[in-house]
Amino acid sequence: MLICKIAGDVVSTQKNSHLKGYKLLLVQPVELDLTTPVGVSLIAIDKVGAGKDDIALVNKEGSSARLLLGDEEIPVQAVIVGIIDDLDILPESRAVRSR
Amino acid sequence: MLICKIAGDVVSTQKNSHLKGYKLLLVQPVELDLTTPVGVSLIAIDKVGAGKDDIALVNKEGSSARLLLGDEEIPVQAVIVGIIDDLDILPESRAVRSR
Amino acid sequence: MLICKIAGDVVSTQKNSHLKGYKLLLVQPVELDLTTPVGVSLIAIDKVGAGKDDIALVNKEGSSARLLLGDEEIPVQAVIVGIIDDLDILPESRAVRSR
Amino acid sequence: MLICKIAGDVVSTQKNSHLKGYKLLLVQPVELDLTTPVGVSLIAIDKVGAGKDDIALVNKEGSSARLLLGDEEIPVQAVIVGIIDDLDILPESRAVRSR
Amino acid sequence: MLICKIAGDVVSTQKNSHLKGYKLLLVQPVELDLTTPVGVSLIAIDKVGAGKDDIALVNKEGSSARLLLGDEEIPVQAVIVGIIDDLDILPESRAVRSR
Repeated sequence: MLICKIAGDVVSTQKNSHLKGYKLLLVQPVELDLTTPVGVSLIAIDKVGAGKDDIALVNKEGSSARLLLGDEEIPVQAVIVGIIDDLDILPESRAVRSR
Repeated sequence: MLICKIAGDVVSTQKNSHLKGYKLLLVQPVELDLTTPVGVSLIAIDKVGAGKDDIALVNKEGSSARLLLGDEEIPVQAVIVGIIDDLDILPESRAVRSR
Repeated sequence: MLICKIAGDVVSTQKNSHLKGYKLLLVQPVELDLTTPVGVSLIAIDKVGAGKDDIALVNKEGSSARLLLGDEEIPVQAVIVGIIDDLDILPESRAVRSR
Repeated sequence: MLICKIAGDVVSTQKNSHLKGYKLLLVQPVELDLTTPVGVSLIAIDKVGAGKDDIALVNKEGSSARLLLGDEEIPVQAVIVGIIDDLDILPESRAVRSR
Repeated sequence: MLICKIAGDVVSTQKNSHLKGYKLLLVQPVELDLTTPVGVSLIAIDKVGAGKDDIALVNKEGSSARLLLGDEEIPVQAVIVGIIDDLDILPESRAVRSR
């Protein structure tokens, strides 16, 4: 699972019928500083009520997304499975990153 | 799911029989400016009527593609599941990207 | 699915029994100019008769490969599902790439 | 499976109910020197009792995670499947890396 | 499937019970020169008797690994499915790489 920052909302009217009714959020994987983007942005379905300024725990596999949404036919990959309250990063890992 | 720009059409006559009859589009994952390419281009099946100048929502997993196409034997990975009308990007995410 | 150039043949005598009898090709994902390599080379099973100088459509998921080969026990990931005759790339995408 | 360093703990109160009761660890894939980070950090469920200063063997697929946790509905991707006591790296590989 | 160089052995005593009894090897994806590392090292189960100096054909998907090992509950991703005796690389691909 990836640590992602909520980066915005997505408006899509023309889409697969199984995706209708779900909130689609734009999420950006970030480094341990929780600010620096790493890799490409994703679009994820939100089921935990994530919003602006939240750091989310994002699962990128469709099989997980289908389990979580209880819809075996939804063509989705990424889903927000939790909101991260706090990361307790070991000093050593923090140091390596900041070099 | 990835944000992709429609980058072109694909002509392939010699292909797996399950792929026949589908429109194959060349799609390019892009950054939040919706212009800068990020990573390798993909070839995706289109089922929502995407075309030139569209920004598409692309699912990269075969399991999703098979569900969406209703064909359990189609050897496909990427499928266009929606067209993005608008991205409402938070100012902070926009700023980080433009550094 | 990825756009790959056929990059060579693979000789492997000591291998899983399910892989015996299949032609293994070395394929290299390429950019839209169909020449510049992008990312790591892959080894794929060929079922469409691809050869030297061909640009192939490659599927990287084992589930697709097993469907296509009709062998539920074959431990394979990549498979060539088509040969690309032509890519009709939109001028805008071409321009972004050549910057 | 990836070689990861334990990089910290994760606190998340608002999350999918299947994730409750599991220890979530922040893990960082590392190079063969076991220090240099490579790629994005992941959040993984720990079932082998990994802790600070451990080098873990991390599996990134949800299907494996569900098998290991004995919970077919848990929307998880990464799971720690072992702790690495020692890596016996061939001199040649070590040399290539240190160039 | 990826072309990997055998990079070393892994010693792990504290691990998932399904992993016990298998030989774990450290493998490094390499470029077509079979020397230059590309991407992160992986840990793979060996079932073909690969060893030092071998170039292996590595499958990175857990579903393939489980099929090959005949153990539906093993939480593994990468498995060595063959040993590469020879790569017959087309001159053009060789040239692009060496630029």
